Amino acid sequence: MASRKTSILEASARVIARRGVRGLRVEELAAEAGVSTALIYYHFKDRTGILRQTLEFINDRAERYTTERDPDADPLTPGEELEQTLLLELQDTVEVRENSTAWGELRASAVFDETLREDLARATLVWVQEVADLLGQVRPMSSAVALAGAAERLTALLEGLSTRWLSGTLPLTHARALMAEAIEGEVARLGR
Amino acid sequence: MASRKTSILEASARVIARRGVRGLRVEELAAEAGVSTALIYYHFKDRTGILRQTLEFINDRAERYTTERDPDADPLTPGEELEQTLLLELQDTVEVRENSTAWGELRASAVFDETLREDLARATLVWVQEVADLLGQVRPMSSAVALAGAAERLTALLEGLSTRWLSGTLPLTHARALMAEAIEGEVARLGR
Repeated sequence: MASRKTSILEASARVIARRGVRGLRVEELAAEAGVSTALIYYHFKDRTGILRQTLEFINDRAERYTTERDPDADPLTPGEELEQTLLLELQDTVEVRENSTAWGELRASAVFDETLREDLARATLVWVQEVADLLGQVRPMSSAVALAGAAERLTALLEGLSTRWLSGTLPLTHARALMAEAIEGEVARLGR
Repeated sequence: MASRKTSILEASARVIARRGVRGLRVEELAAEAGVSTALIYYHFKDRTGILRQTLEFINDRAERYTTERDPDADPLTPGEELEQTLLLELQDTVEVRENSTAWGELRASAVFDETLREDLARATLVWVQEVADLLGQVRPMSSAVALAGAAERLTALLEGLSTRWLSGTLPLTHARALMAEAIEGEVARLGR
């Protein structure tokens, strides 16, 4: 069974994905999680504490669903692993939709409010390095700078495509095709 | 002198860039524009009318500052024009910051609220076609599908990089370098 704290974080991601960061009120979160506001303050101190830990929770969850593999399947090549890691962020499941919406909201809220900027920069860096590592396995002769640049472009593109998908401008299958071509393009460029 | 209506739209873009779409109240907009709420309702009917026309206003303004050229300078090659059109969206001026923040907010608000989705899709399509046209001048032998795909990736990447810049995750000079390399990559791919 999920701990009380995890249930609150799950509820927080749900509320943010439904109403946005600015719609998150501690009273509503308490109602959604079925706990008292006192318990929320006990675990998270204040609203900033909730947002910080929700960001971390969302990242852990994305890490899980983008790296989960069928244990009976053949091991993936580095190229396949790279593609899956990025394309699994563009899936029409409740979890991915909720996670991507909440991530986009936390990122967008940092345009207006500096509180989460450091946490977001750190989380982005971890993600970029993870993608750069996978690119380095596909193209071991590339420089660290070239790998980091390609990873920054691919992850920023994924955020751009994801927001277009979630806001109804871009069909999901087309977003996935554009992303797959971008991966292919960056891998080809690193090989030149 | 700007018309009353234009002054209201300028004020609306400012308010959205300062507090977000969800922070836009007609009373506050009236105060910011120095007009009565009645005049706002007269010109825009309702809040949706304000948001729709602000979106259009923002797009017209972006169109202007990304295509303005020094009349005494040598004419640009299609490749230079393509690069300028995209890179001029990544400039640290009050106007570009405000415009990009408001555009990002209008896009993000459509994740939660369907009202603006069609207007956003239409505005995105116009932008994608404009970039595809420029790419086609650089690579006249490319297919329309390949040009459209490259333009969709470049504009979505620009949105992703722009949000990272505005939210303090990415320094502007680095965002510009990543964008310039992406343009070069898409142009090279179209030439293969």
